[in-house]
Amino acid sequence: MIRAAVVGASGYAGAELVRILSGHPDVNLAVVTSRQYAGDRFDAVYPALNGIIPLRFQDNDPDLIGQQSDVVFLALPHQTSMEMAPVLLDAGKRVVDLSADFRFKNRDAYESRYQPHACPHLLEKAVYGLCEWNEKEISAADLIGNPGCYPTSILLPLLPLVKENLVDPLGIIADSKSGVSGAGRSASQTTHFCHANESFKAYKVGVHRHTPEMEEQIALAAGEAVSITFVPHLLPITRGMESTVYATLSPGVGEKQVHRCLMDYYVDRSFVRLLTTGQFPDTLQVKGTNFCDIGWRIDPGSGRLILMSVIDNLVKGAAGQAVQNMNLMLGLDESAGLTGVPYPL
Amino acid sequence: MIRAAVVGASGYAGAELVRILSGHPDVNLAVVTSRQYAGDRFDAVYPALNGIIPLRFQDNDPDLIGQQSDVVFLALPHQTSMEMAPVLLDAGKRVVDLSADFRFKNRDAYESRYQPHACPHLLEKAVYGLCEWNEKEISAADLIGNPGCYPTSILLPLLPLVKENLVDPLGIIADSKSGVSGAGRSASQTTHFCHANESFKAYKVGVHRHTPEMEEQIALAAGEAVSITFVPHLLPITRGMESTVYATLSPGVGEKQVHRCLMDYYVDRSFVRLLTTGQFPDTLQVKGTNFCDIGWRIDPGSGRLILMSVIDNLVKGAAGQAVQNMNLMLGLDESAGLTGVPYPL
Amino acid sequence: MIRAAVVGASGYAGAELVRILSGHPDVNLAVVTSRQYAGDRFDAVYPALNGIIPLRFQDNDPDLIGQQSDVVFLALPHQTSMEMAPVLLDAGKRVVDLSADFRFKNRDAYESRYQPHACPHLLEKAVYGLCEWNEKEISAADLIGNPGCYPTSILLPLLPLVKENLVDPLGIIADSKSGVSGAGRSASQTTHFCHANESFKAYKVGVHRHTPEMEEQIALAAGEAVSITFVPHLLPITRGMESTVYATLSPGVGEKQVHRCLMDYYVDRSFVRLLTTGQFPDTLQVKGTNFCDIGWRIDPGSGRLILMSVIDNLVKGAAGQAVQNMNLMLGLDESAGLTGVPYPL
Amino acid sequence: MIRAAVVGASGYAGAELVRILSGHPDVNLAVVTSRQYAGDRFDAVYPALNGIIPLRFQDNDPDLIGQQSDVVFLALPHQTSMEMAPVLLDAGKRVVDLSADFRFKNRDAYESRYQPHACPHLLEKAVYGLCEWNEKEISAADLIGNPGCYPTSILLPLLPLVKENLVDPLGIIADSKSGVSGAGRSASQTTHFCHANESFKAYKVGVHRHTPEMEEQIALAAGEAVSITFVPHLLPITRGMESTVYATLSPGVGEKQVHRCLMDYYVDRSFVRLLTTGQFPDTLQVKGTNFCDIGWRIDPGSGRLILMSVIDNLVKGAAGQAVQNMNLMLGLDESAGLTGVPYPL
Repeated sequence: MIRAAVVGASGYAGAELVRILSGHPDVNLAVVTSRQYAGDRFDAVYPALNGIIPLRFQDNDPDLIGQQSDVVFLALPHQTSMEMAPVLLDAGKRVVDLSADFRFKNRDAYESRYQPHACPHLLEKAVYGLCEWNEKEISAADLIGNPGCYPTSILLPLLPLVKENLVDPLGIIADSKSGVSGAGRSASQTTHFCHANESFKAYKVGVHRHTPEMEEQIALAAGEAVSITFVPHLLPITRGMESTVYATLSPGVGEKQVHRCLMDYYVDRSFVRLLTTGQFPDTLQVKGTNFCDIGWRIDPGSGRLILMSVIDNLVKGAAGQAVQNMNLMLGLDESAGLTGVPYPL
Repeated sequence: MIRAAVVGASGYAGAELVRILSGHPDVNLAVVTSRQYAGDRFDAVYPALNGIIPLRFQDNDPDLIGQQSDVVFLALPHQTSMEMAPVLLDAGKRVVDLSADFRFKNRDAYESRYQPHACPHLLEKAVYGLCEWNEKEISAADLIGNPGCYPTSILLPLLPLVKENLVDPLGIIADSKSGVSGAGRSASQTTHFCHANESFKAYKVGVHRHTPEMEEQIALAAGEAVSITFVPHLLPITRGMESTVYATLSPGVGEKQVHRCLMDYYVDRSFVRLLTTGQFPDTLQVKGTNFCDIGWRIDPGSGRLILMSVIDNLVKGAAGQAVQNMNLMLGLDESAGLTGVPYPL
Repeated sequence: MIRAAVVGASGYAGAELVRILSGHPDVNLAVVTSRQYAGDRFDAVYPALNGIIPLRFQDNDPDLIGQQSDVVFLALPHQTSMEMAPVLLDAGKRVVDLSADFRFKNRDAYESRYQPHACPHLLEKAVYGLCEWNEKEISAADLIGNPGCYPTSILLPLLPLVKENLVDPLGIIADSKSGVSGAGRSASQTTHFCHANESFKAYKVGVHRHTPEMEEQIALAAGEAVSITFVPHLLPITRGMESTVYATLSPGVGEKQVHRCLMDYYVDRSFVRLLTTGQFPDTLQVKGTNFCDIGWRIDPGSGRLILMSVIDNLVKGAAGQAVQNMNLMLGLDESAGLTGVPYPL
Repeated sequence: MIRAAVVGASGYAGAELVRILSGHPDVNLAVVTSRQYAGDRFDAVYPALNGIIPLRFQDNDPDLIGQQSDVVFLALPHQTSMEMAPVLLDAGKRVVDLSADFRFKNRDAYESRYQPHACPHLLEKAVYGLCEWNEKEISAADLIGNPGCYPTSILLPLLPLVKENLVDPLGIIADSKSGVSGAGRSASQTTHFCHANESFKAYKVGVHRHTPEMEEQIALAAGEAVSITFVPHLLPITRGMESTVYATLSPGVGEKQVHRCLMDYYVDRSFVRLLTTGQFPDTLQVKGTNFCDIGWRIDPGSGRLILMSVIDNLVKGAAGQAVQNMNLMLGLDESAGLTGVPYPL
């Protein structure tokens, strides 16, 4: 059994990692950490898991964590991650980082939106963990920058079409909507029930930090620099994210080519479900799962391509993809631990 | 006192008309009709109004309705409206129609999406009741085609910029999200709580009937034919609608011009609230009101203009705007009956 | 026009007072205060009221507030209220206090659950502001202890039956459910959307501070000491409260007597709606209103009386009843400012 | 592998059975039926299971079903079940019936609330499938009457205390609250999102059909006839049920005895979690699980016992308990197929 550690297990992504890893057939969840709750039982913070997860939180000591585990998931705020990752890598551990710290190849792009990078030499080594896209690199990696939730939902439908030159990489627009769990466990006016309930609004318009992360990946697929327009919105649901992406088709491209391209990339993938014509993806259908459901349509009036995708922001958008990355790194079945049957409602 | 009739008062838009008109200082709500509930008390169908609205539904008899009222609101499905409107107009009544039947100048556009028009000669006479846009024509009208909810939310921020050539009328994209009340009172799988709750999805992508309605209005402002891309989504809230609209700025246009244009058109209007920079509109802030809140930003990466607007789909998107139209037609204060103080939450 | 001040206007009850008072025909809302937001615009904290309430918060200076107003609403935490109230009363102001500080006649009962009372001499003078019950005393009062939300929902259906000896005052059970706004504006794990959404649970079982408040009122009506069993629960809605109350009927009492008693007390009251047999009250029907809807049934199996009532916890359970109290104190129409037509949905 | 059939698989309880059985280690889900959807793919009705459940609905032919399966789950309306069950039993199949048709020993009690029973001879043979209570009888049974959701939530905390004479079996009150999925998949005004959202109300007060079902079980444990007071309410959540039960303690019974009794019955049970003092159960903590969480407190004022329990109405209240019953009948591990790790949120 592989020994796994979840660092920052009191946050929502961390707790979701605990859920998935504790049911993983090849993993022993050995360590959960939290600075705030060190010494407390995990199920005191997440009583749904009462009696199921017997662990207590320990503090974030990288040396100790290294001794106790083979794979470490860092579910920490950015900046904190890049302080711990080098210690763990030096100790020979595999690391999946859920922060933004290792998602960028371009240090300047990272630093322009975040802060000075503490270990820029690792940026080259780290692999962007979009599993359906970088499977081969992930399999050989020691350090994964686990993608952001918005980028996962947008890049999965988009990258194959960009790569195959079926859409113009310029002028892409992504209009995304996220459930409240994306804002994290911290209590704030934004996450107050009376503020979020019966509410819908855009936020961080034009300045969200996931924008350069997506731009780097689209540019890599396109072979040229791109700017996208990205508007995130906050949805009054706990889990779930939908992205509607607008792109201009390349000359001569029609339904047949789009269909074939998406089929080529995804028909054999465990966690991408391509909907048939006239079906549109619904966050409810992927709640609690690692699926990304994708639908699309060519707008009959304007001829523009409309891509729609849904994920559970905590699973395929965070903890589920992190475990999928671990599976690929360790040569396990990609879907190990991720095969729970979805709820019909 | 003006005698008003609400035809089709058992639907959500009709019931909302009842609410507003019963508190209107210049109106006596004389008639409410419903084929399904004829003979029943209004508050048996809407018990929130128990003891407040003493009326009973009567049947949809246009001759009788004409005798009992001065102004008639038709809150009926399309097709049914165009059968009743001519009778009422012949009897000298003012008519505000909430269906799509009188929203189009272009008969072909209407018929391509709906059905053969029963009284096409009225299309020329009817005025598109987007109050902040057609105030003068509305004041002189007998027959109003009350705008759709989606078009109201999209056209209000967009039309001034199109009219003043600040944006390119081609290539506009509108990504809209509506609360469940927009689907009406009929029970269906779509409106089932267990289906809508914790769910978000696009629907009728590229084929929604509000598309040609918007295209006609944008074309009139632009002076040229346009196609827009419009994607509606269903939100798990009862009331509220948000539209995020993407448009390309004309060469040389920047923040100053956009700000000035929107201020010129709206600073003195009762029901449009322009948000300051960095604020984005929230459906919760307009719930139960006739306001349209508008925010905007020029995307720093792509230079594209992002307009965001929110309305209550049942008020500014239906019944409230219908009453505002009546006020204008009758020379009353535009905001009469519509000045209830919004709920802070 | 009466000049009114809302002290503690940034909380939910305070903001709701602002909403109601700003639409009150006889009141000029002169002052809103908040220690935390002193100097800020009211509508910066409650953007729904953008452009409607032009006031800025000022600090909680009782002398200044006294000069600026005739009636003062204290929407403060308990303890803070009893420090301000004496100053305002000495200045000749009428005071409606929404905290628990002036709800008790029995100082020991207050102090056993709260803290030492700073001005116990005022407890005798203060009137418990359950409007339908203490109307005469309220009309002559200078200081009102505005009832708690749970007590309002429970006492309104119950007190007439206790007073008229139709039910046994011993052994009463109240099972109540409150929307999240009852927990106030402060962000916490309890009010976090992801915690409250899709959740329902009891809290403060057997120890809620509203218990002795109710017991004192029931004892006054019964003429003997009583203990009730009270269990509050948290509901995933923003506004609304339901109480289901179980009581043993006195020997020989049946449907006719219960019906007649409730009719005697309430048939002429503006804000109590008695439902007909077979109808049960729904929080949705009173949202945003000052109504208390009451239904009841004698359980056919056990013969026990089941009373059900709903209120909007922020209106009849707080701000609305506070304004109703002011109306009674000042000899205005009891329903002034409280007659907005309810939303059909 | 055991071959299982789900008859009535298009309803919510049926679909949940499909979910659980398709992940059961010892079961092959061989048949799903639906009269309405015969011939359609299961995942066309429940698209969350797209690609996971390859079955098509077949018609409700009991002979054919009998040939295809070893165990049959009847997730049908009452009356329909009792027409199919005898055929399946004659064919030697084990039957778990989720309707009310086989929950009663007392035919009169059944017929007084439902209709004439078609096969009363089976009532004696059928076992009431409250797993933690009737484990031994279930293990030997061919026909299980799977308990109602409300009875499950109420009887689990209550029966041990009644059986051990710690509470008075007379005068019990159960105040229960159910999520909307309890109303089933049929669209109606009750289940319309705009009706259920932001709403809470009692329904079927004093006349709910689960009352005699509970009374029979309590009477069996008490050794005397009992009447309980039961009030169900509708909660605006998809899944979940809470019951707060009020009972009078027997003389001399205190916290220690209650604690010991509940521990004796449940400390070793897989699906009952006893909360520690001061914790109260939350529907969110059992969502999607087969757990029943139980908390309790002796009311300090009245000395009355307050029991609180939560279940997922579709799992422990329906499909999960049905599978648990099958496991017991077949000598499998009681928790087989029911061990999915709960979601932390």
